[in-house]
Amino acid sequence: MTPPAPAHDPLRSWNDGLAKSSLVRFVELVTRDGSPGFVPGKERIAVFDNDGTLCSEMPVLTQFAFTVDRMRAQASSHPDWQTEAPFREILEGDMTGAFACGMGAIVKALAATYSGMTTEEFDHDVTEWMNTARHPDTGRLYTERVFEPMVELIAYLQANGFAVYIVSASGIDFLRPWTEKVYGIPREQIIGSNIRLRYEIRNGSPVLVRLPAIELFDEGVEKPVAIHHFIGKKPIFAFGDSDGDLPMLQWVASGAGSRFTGLVHHTDSERAHEIHLPIGRSDHVLAEAQARGWTVVDMKEDWKDVFPPATS
Amino acid sequence: MTPPAPAHDPLRSWNDGLAKSSLVRFVELVTRDGSPGFVPGKERIAVFDNDGTLCSEMPVLTQFAFTVDRMRAQASSHPDWQTEAPFREILEGDMTGAFACGMGAIVKALAATYSGMTTEEFDHDVTEWMNTARHPDTGRLYTERVFEPMVELIAYLQANGFAVYIVSASGIDFLRPWTEKVYGIPREQIIGSNIRLRYEIRNGSPVLVRLPAIELFDEGVEKPVAIHHFIGKKPIFAFGDSDGDLPMLQWVASGAGSRFTGLVHHTDSERAHEIHLPIGRSDHVLAEAQARGWTVVDMKEDWKDVFPPATS
Repeated sequence: MTPPAPAHDPLRSWNDGLAKSSLVRFVELVTRDGSPGFVPGKERIAVFDNDGTLCSEMPVLTQFAFTVDRMRAQASSHPDWQTEAPFREILEGDMTGAFACGMGAIVKALAATYSGMTTEEFDHDVTEWMNTARHPDTGRLYTERVFEPMVELIAYLQANGFAVYIVSASGIDFLRPWTEKVYGIPREQIIGSNIRLRYEIRNGSPVLVRLPAIELFDEGVEKPVAIHHFIGKKPIFAFGDSDGDLPMLQWVASGAGSRFTGLVHHTDSERAHEIHLPIGRSDHVLAEAQARGWTVVDMKEDWKDVFPPATS
Repeated sequence: MTPPAPAHDPLRSWNDGLAKSSLVRFVELVTRDGSPGFVPGKERIAVFDNDGTLCSEMPVLTQFAFTVDRMRAQASSHPDWQTEAPFREILEGDMTGAFACGMGAIVKALAATYSGMTTEEFDHDVTEWMNTARHPDTGRLYTERVFEPMVELIAYLQANGFAVYIVSASGIDFLRPWTEKVYGIPREQIIGSNIRLRYEIRNGSPVLVRLPAIELFDEGVEKPVAIHHFIGKKPIFAFGDSDGDLPMLQWVASGAGSRFTGLVHHTDSERAHEIHLPIGRSDHVLAEAQARGWTVVDMKEDWKDVFPPATS
C-alpha cells in the first residue's frame, strides 16, 4: 500500500523527481542531530541569486524595468539622455542596443538616474513602483513574477533553521524594500550591487545621499567576496542560474562537510517565457554542474507551477 | 523596607545610577507590547563601536598590537620596512611616531602585512594570536581586556530580542575570529574596515586572497553608510566613545520612535588605565551627547568592575 501523501508538502509546486528528492534528502541530512552530515543551526546558511533564479528576468530584469519607467519620467529635465548611450537606447525601449553597451554602462546609468536622492526617498520610490507597476506582457505585478517553487524552497529551508540570503547583481537598495514581503527574506540578509553613499546633514537631520558612482557590481567573482564580507562564513547551500553565479557556486561547493549546489536551468519557454539562455549566459555553469553532479533543476520537468496564482 | 535585589541582575557590574537605570528603562519600554514605545523584535537592532567602547584601547588598539607582532616576525624578509614609514616606527615600538603618520598610513601598513594571504590563513593566524598573546603591561590575554559591564549589556539586549552588531574601524576579518566567543556576537553581525579581496583558484580550490588595498575604512561618516549597506535598517540603539562614532550616533538618534544613544566616557585612569581622551578624540561627541541628553557612561562612577575576573 502506498503511504498517503503528507498533509502539507512544503515543496508542493515541485514534481517528484531527482531535484525535489535531492533537496529533501539534503535538508533531512543536515538537520538530523547525531548523523555524520549534521550541521549546527548557526552554520546553516543558504545563498540564492535573484534574477533568473528566484524570479523571471524575461524579457528584462525587474530593476531595469523600474529604471526605464523612472528615466522616462525624468527625461524632460535631462536633454542629454536623448543622445547619450545607454540612456537613449533605454528610453527608446531598445533593450538589445542597451545591453550591447555592456552591463557596466547600464549599471552606471541606473546609478545616475537616482543620483542626489536620499536612501529613504529611493526606498519609498521602489516600494511605490513595486506596488503598482505591471509587466507589459502579462499585466501582472512584478512581485508576482517570482518562481513559486523557489519561494517554497526558501520557506522550507527557513523552517529547518537556515538563514537564507540573496546575493544579487541587482541593487541592494532596489531589492530590500520588497524582498521580505515577497520572499520572506529580511533586509539584513540581502546582498547586492551598491552605489556610493555620502552622509550629510540636511535641514538638521542626517541623510545618506546616492552618488553617481558604483561601489560594488556584485556579479561573478565579486559574489564570493561579497558573501565573505557580509556573512563571514561559507554557506552550505547555494542556488544560481547563470555563469555570473559560477564562482559563488564553486565557493560554496568547496567547503568541508554537507554541501548543496543547485542550478535553475531555463528550459520552459511556454509557461515562463523562459529560454535556454537567460540574460546572463549559462553554458559554463551548466557544464560544471553536470561534470560535478550538482543538482540541475529543469523548470519544465521539475516545476508543477512556475508562478504563484494571480491575486490581482 | 527595601525590596530584595533581584536574584540575577543582568547588569551586575554596573553601579546604580542614571546610566544603568536609563538602560533598563529603555529595554523595558521597547519590549512592553502595547506600550507606545514598543518596538517589534525585528526592528530591535543595536550597534556598538568596538575599540574604547567594548574593550580597552590603551595603550594601543588590539589589532595594532597584533600587527606589530606579525610585522616583527616578518621583518627579516622585508628590509624596506626598516626605513619606510610607518613600518619603521611600528617596528621600533614608536607608537606616537606611527600615529603621526596618520590613521590612513597605519591601515595601509596593516593591509600590506597580510597581502597575499588567503582569508582562511588570516583567520587562523588571528585566532592563534588571540589565544596566546598577552598584554605587555598586565600580562593578560587580549580577550580579557574587554569591558565586563558592556559584555553584560550585550547579553542583556540579546536576551530581550535585540540583534547586536559591532561597527568598528578595526578590520572585519580581524574581529570575526574572536567576537563570538568573547562578546557572543556572531560573525555576520560584525561590520568593520575591510581590505580588497580577490577570488582565485589555488590548487583546484577557490580561495579569497588579501590584496594590499583598503576598500573601506569604517570610521566617522563611513559608519552610518556601512550600517545601511550591511543591515539596511536604522538601528534603535547605539554606543560609541569617540568623535569617530559621532555620525553613527547622530544617525541612530535621528530615527522615529524609541531611541537610545550612549557614550562611554573614559574617566578611569586608575582601574582601566583609561584617560579622558583615548586614541580617537571625544570632545565633539561629548559636547553633543551633553547638549542632546544622550546617556554618558562615566567609567569611574558607573562601573563596579571594568574587566572580567582573571581566568588565566
